[in-house]
Amino acid sequence: MKVAVLGSGSWGTAIALYLGRLGFEVSQWCLEPEVVRSVARQRENLLYLKGFKYPDTVSATLSVEEAVEGASFLFSVIPVQHTASFWREHRALLEGKPLVCASKGIEVDSLKTLSQLYWEVFGSLEEYFVLSGPTFAVEVAKGLPTAAVVTSIDGEGALEVAKRFSSTSFRLYASTDVKGVELGGALKNVIAIATGISDGMGLGNNARAALITRGLHEIKRLGKALGAKEETFYGLSGLGDLVLTCTGDLSRNRRFGLALGRGEKPEEGRFVVEGVHTVKAVKALSDRLAVEMPISEAVYKIIYEGVSPKEAMEELLSRPVKEESL
Amino acid sequence: MKVAVLGSGSWGTAIALYLGRLGFEVSQWCLEPEVVRSVARQRENLLYLKGFKYPDTVSATLSVEEAVEGASFLFSVIPVQHTASFWREHRALLEGKPLVCASKGIEVDSLKTLSQLYWEVFGSLEEYFVLSGPTFAVEVAKGLPTAAVVTSIDGEGALEVAKRFSSTSFRLYASTDVKGVELGGALKNVIAIATGISDGMGLGNNARAALITRGLHEIKRLGKALGAKEETFYGLSGLGDLVLTCTGDLSRNRRFGLALGRGEKPEEGRFVVEGVHTVKAVKALSDRLAVEMPISEAVYKIIYEGVSPKEAMEELLSRPVKEESL
Repeated sequence: MKVAVLGSGSWGTAIALYLGRLGFEVSQWCLEPEVVRSVARQRENLLYLKGFKYPDTVSATLSVEEAVEGASFLFSVIPVQHTASFWREHRALLEGKPLVCASKGIEVDSLKTLSQLYWEVFGSLEEYFVLSGPTFAVEVAKGLPTAAVVTSIDGEGALEVAKRFSSTSFRLYASTDVKGVELGGALKNVIAIATGISDGMGLGNNARAALITRGLHEIKRLGKALGAKEETFYGLSGLGDLVLTCTGDLSRNRRFGLALGRGEKPEEGRFVVEGVHTVKAVKALSDRLAVEMPISEAVYKIIYEGVSPKEAMEELLSRPVKEESL
Repeated sequence: MKVAVLGSGSWGTAIALYLGRLGFEVSQWCLEPEVVRSVARQRENLLYLKGFKYPDTVSATLSVEEAVEGASFLFSVIPVQHTASFWREHRALLEGKPLVCASKGIEVDSLKTLSQLYWEVFGSLEEYFVLSGPTFAVEVAKGLPTAAVVTSIDGEGALEVAKRFSSTSFRLYASTDVKGVELGGALKNVIAIATGISDGMGLGNNARAALITRGLHEIKRLGKALGAKEETFYGLSGLGDLVLTCTGDLSRNRRFGLALGRGEKPEEGRFVVEGVHTVKAVKALSDRLAVEMPISEAVYKIIYEGVSPKEAMEELLSRPVKEESL
């Protein structure tokens, strides 16, 4: 069976490698000619995921048409701020094929999640799936054990997709809360920046664990206000991904925060730091819906209002003592 | 105001130092004469928490009577397997004084939690409080920011205690779910051994995040079956402490698991590895109540039935694909 992977960043590449090793015929669409060249010559994505040979089952192409032709499933792994425009541009080619979206984030300009954008472009969510969870690309590429969630508005569809693409090294669980799964994956990046800042300041493991815990609850509050189910935030796509991103040094959002906390000027570089965009959306949404999100607010102030990490942390710690709100 | 800290391990000592610095008059009861001697001579607990000078407000004594005389609050920080016998032995001295229990675990012989044991000894929970959360002793001793929960059967009492002992560096939140708070603190040690094993085997961050997430849900299932509130497990004393213990290398339970995962024979040494005891209680309770706890079961098999970490992990990963149970 042929599968198309749309995107050639580290995560898209890890998915392509995984599916190719499982025996699927994979065609990977790449934006950059350098990636296609490096795959053709060295059988590696030297730009975004060095060190992993492409199996014979995986090919790379610059043509969306070639990638999706004859494919039974599409995996969309494009940077969030460009996903909707990509879908819109290639609507005729993509339409009618089941699409598994593995990007995480909120479109800042519209404040919309990817399922909302998909619905706007394609007019239906029947064939839309979200893959999300604690999944560092390089570990999936190494074949290390990983568990994630596949969700769709139709539970049976999600379970079918989960079974089709699961293996003992990459276990997929089914869920039906599309909004909760995609919000968990998006909002956790802001908390990862916060814990990075705290660690960069040397505040320790206790502070980090508290930020993760309180961070999960503020994410959940916003998620509920946006129509997600509470329990989804306690699953692999919520808590699991949050813990991974906040404690694993492979996370770009965490590294961005670490630099801020150390008083350095972080650079985004070629890799996208999604949380830097997401925090703008979080700020706008939490203001609009009147949801209290003190940790995300602190990150926003540090990145966009010039407040120092020290000031922002002191403000967080001086909040009044009260009952634990869960 | 005078406060007695009963226990001279690292956590008891960190609490004594914290309270002493806050301005309380603290008398710390110590089992070992070496500790009292080192406090008298070097103003440090050289056995269990080197590197932190005792403030003038804190004294150490071998006499329980001296420690508790005139104290308005007691902090009980004694190894769990010895707590009830200590309370029983000194019942007449301790009775009638509010007691904050900061030990975490389940008594293996009786399968009882500390609040159940307190009730058996003192016949009332009116003056019983539990302090729990993500609190590495050494970080509290350093004055790094920490947040935890104080709970009692009476919410107003817990809030009063939280306010009395809170500061900007150590924030206490109030809760009323005694059982949930104490079970979270006890059961997390077993999951910390599991993630230690996984990390010791080199299985990576994705696997660890999945174990933490699925681990929290199996802890919660047992907790609910034992009468705790579900949401408590998502707070500082549940998730927060779990994340800390599973990701911070300061945790003894984690280090014990790391050694197992590397194929070494771990030694308990002078410090108690509470999870090694707790997993026995978990096994007995989950069997009795028919609660599925695959991760704790795997830890039990590795420690007590000679199953290899590799076999146990493979069994965990070969479970059927299904919906995510939250």
